[in-house]
Amino acid sequence: MDIQSYMTGIGKQARAASRLVAKADTATKNKALTLTAQAIERDVKRLLAANAEDLAAAHAKKLEPALIDRLTLTEKTVAAMADGLRQIVKLPDPIGEISKLKQQPSGIRVGRMRVPLGVIAIIYESRPNVTADAAGLCLKAGNAAILRGGSEAIHSNQAIAACVHEGLKNAGLPETAVQVVETTDRAAVGELLRMNEYVDIVVPRGGKSLIERVLRESRIPMIKHLDGVCHVYIDDRADVEKAIRIADNAKTQRLGTCNTMETLLVARGIADKVLPRLGAIYQDKGIELRGDDASRNLVPGMKPATEEDWYTEYLAAILAVRVVDGLDQAIEHIAVYGSQHTDAIVTEDQARAQRFLREVDSSSVLVNASTRFADGYEYGLGAEIGISTDKLHARGPVGLEGLTSLKWVVFGDGQIRT
Amino acid sequence: MDIQSYMTGIGKQARAASRLVAKADTATKNKALTLTAQAIERDVKRLLAANAEDLAAAHAKKLEPALIDRLTLTEKTVAAMADGLRQIVKLPDPIGEISKLKQQPSGIRVGRMRVPLGVIAIIYESRPNVTADAAGLCLKAGNAAILRGGSEAIHSNQAIAACVHEGLKNAGLPETAVQVVETTDRAAVGELLRMNEYVDIVVPRGGKSLIERVLRESRIPMIKHLDGVCHVYIDDRADVEKAIRIADNAKTQRLGTCNTMETLLVARGIADKVLPRLGAIYQDKGIELRGDDASRNLVPGMKPATEEDWYTEYLAAILAVRVVDGLDQAIEHIAVYGSQHTDAIVTEDQARAQRFLREVDSSSVLVNASTRFADGYEYGLGAEIGISTDKLHARGPVGLEGLTSLKWVVFGDGQIRT
Repeated sequence: MDIQSYMTGIGKQARAASRLVAKADTATKNKALTLTAQAIERDVKRLLAANAEDLAAAHAKKLEPALIDRLTLTEKTVAAMADGLRQIVKLPDPIGEISKLKQQPSGIRVGRMRVPLGVIAIIYESRPNVTADAAGLCLKAGNAAILRGGSEAIHSNQAIAACVHEGLKNAGLPETAVQVVETTDRAAVGELLRMNEYVDIVVPRGGKSLIERVLRESRIPMIKHLDGVCHVYIDDRADVEKAIRIADNAKTQRLGTCNTMETLLVARGIADKVLPRLGAIYQDKGIELRGDDASRNLVPGMKPATEEDWYTEYLAAILAVRVVDGLDQAIEHIAVYGSQHTDAIVTEDQARAQRFLREVDSSSVLVNASTRFADGYEYGLGAEIGISTDKLHARGPVGLEGLTSLKWVVFGDGQIRT
Repeated sequence: MDIQSYMTGIGKQARAASRLVAKADTATKNKALTLTAQAIERDVKRLLAANAEDLAAAHAKKLEPALIDRLTLTEKTVAAMADGLRQIVKLPDPIGEISKLKQQPSGIRVGRMRVPLGVIAIIYESRPNVTADAAGLCLKAGNAAILRGGSEAIHSNQAIAACVHEGLKNAGLPETAVQVVETTDRAAVGELLRMNEYVDIVVPRGGKSLIERVLRESRIPMIKHLDGVCHVYIDDRADVEKAIRIADNAKTQRLGTCNTMETLLVARGIADKVLPRLGAIYQDKGIELRGDDASRNLVPGMKPATEEDWYTEYLAAILAVRVVDGLDQAIEHIAVYGSQHTDAIVTEDQARAQRFLREVDSSSVLVNASTRFADGYEYGLGAEIGISTDKLHARGPVGLEGLTSLKWVVFGDGQIRT
């Protein structure tokens, strides 16, 4: 296969389809999603059979257990996929809304209309449910999607795509509105990243090496996050019980997510009240602690932290701990070592909370709540395509709105500029 | 001079200054702008003397008259510069506003806080007033600015920068919040475009060759527009008088601006009523007309248009004219040949106006108003840093809001994720 012309063909078809999806009404888009959900439920056996093919290949290639785990579909996860699509059906359609319509001195009325971005390419690994999820979000926001899943999930993804195509077709929308790249050749990703004529935005979802590759090769804007080196800062004016509850939850509720705390900062004035108790909790739960000298004096069995630790997103049962003088040093630490993803302060002092909110330059900043809340569902977006640590366009959890743009609309009655 | 280390130094200082400007309160930022305006007025003679140096060099180099015209400062333009800064003082401070704060089922309250982007680099040509204007907009939006003006304006820009630095210093802000690149070496631009560690966004303001260079070399996101191939479509349900007034104004009010009409599309059903009258108006005003056969049959003296004409942004006394079958063909023409900048429909038919608004994928879409309105001042933004034809982040006229980002802020009372 000539990868370049294959991918260009996909790009052209996506661009053409995007114009039809952009003007589709809400009922049509919802019909496509509902029919897709029905097809997924009806075809559960076919989906599991396709997934079994991928799993057999994965076992034969001796892929990592964690990867195989993410790749595996069950009757339950297939049902959850259909359910996710029905959730997207229930979300309000963002497209076409005109906001901030105001009369100007010239007599024209000027507002902003929410419109689709156009063509969205999503590059992801392992999890086949992303195929349904991403297709649903892109479509509801009026976009065409090009989906490039991992080669290890190719049969699963194609089986899911068949359901999406059936839904699109029976709703009267072009099947090319959602295209799954059918080659597992890695060169296809390179081509995709060069097609700035046909692709408006790339969403890489996966490990750091994938995202770094996309960053290096792409000339197309991205919605992505590289690292989630998230902090909880326990201020000396914190409520001790809240501090312990939040610092425990932020690290231990799930270890491998991007909004999990990786470094705990504790004000010197409160360290002796919280660190010994927290240390015991973490050690009970099997968390390895790496701290500065002041922390180690308070928690027996803590390893010394190196400079490298402050920069590290462990995504594992390891936590770095540092005692800081107070708010200024905490903000400075986060500015130097953080990844602008998600950071929290625990304090009862409103002025300090305000300063933390204003001065910490992260996509999510929380007061007296666990970093684990940084999530599209918890924020009320209904669903998310990912979390962005960029400052431009979409930032933090990205839902339907992040997959749209605003254009200016002007209503006149014959006005001219003088 | 070692350009690379010089530029890196500027970048590092800008990054450091950006953190201080980001947390500056409104009164401090306004004080800096007001003091700058006063310094500019006080120093008018010094500014004109510096400008005279640039002008002498420009004449010696036999630069184009249009360029020399843009380069020239007068007492009036200097006063306008100071006035522009006072206008920015009057604009509401966008920073710190928290919007859409909503309680979520978990009990946390989630909202979005408007925050600065960080460091903005502006690359521009000729007009020295951009130095004051861009510095003022970046500062008010809480950003540090790196300004790289044209080598032909170096003395003027440095003189203006001295006033900005005086204002910053006397307001207690770091002078490095606004830095003017002091070398005219073109390699400095190349360095600037590679400093993605220190620069959050690049705004190229200038001719197409400048913008193409930035597009080619930059790894940093941009606010830019390449072309303004703007259309007016006169529908067969248009009010003839409005149509003539708008099509006249859109082309002839100013020839060289990006929102000037370059192609006129007229529905076949109304062409005989509007084209002969418009043709006479344009020809009276010295506009060269290039049309398709149907247009030429209605307007004597019209040259034939080539395929190339439909793609061309003339920025000159030339207009392309095409008769189309109706709305569908007009939308299709704009999709194929347009530049997604600014397009207008003239019609009394609400359904057709709606379709045009929904389906034309441009940064500004107007109904019964001249394309010349696509402008930050006319849209009520107060001032603009430029017009963006990108769909991501800022689109259309970009004012203070386009120089900011939104971050998520969460207020809890000890909530943890379960």
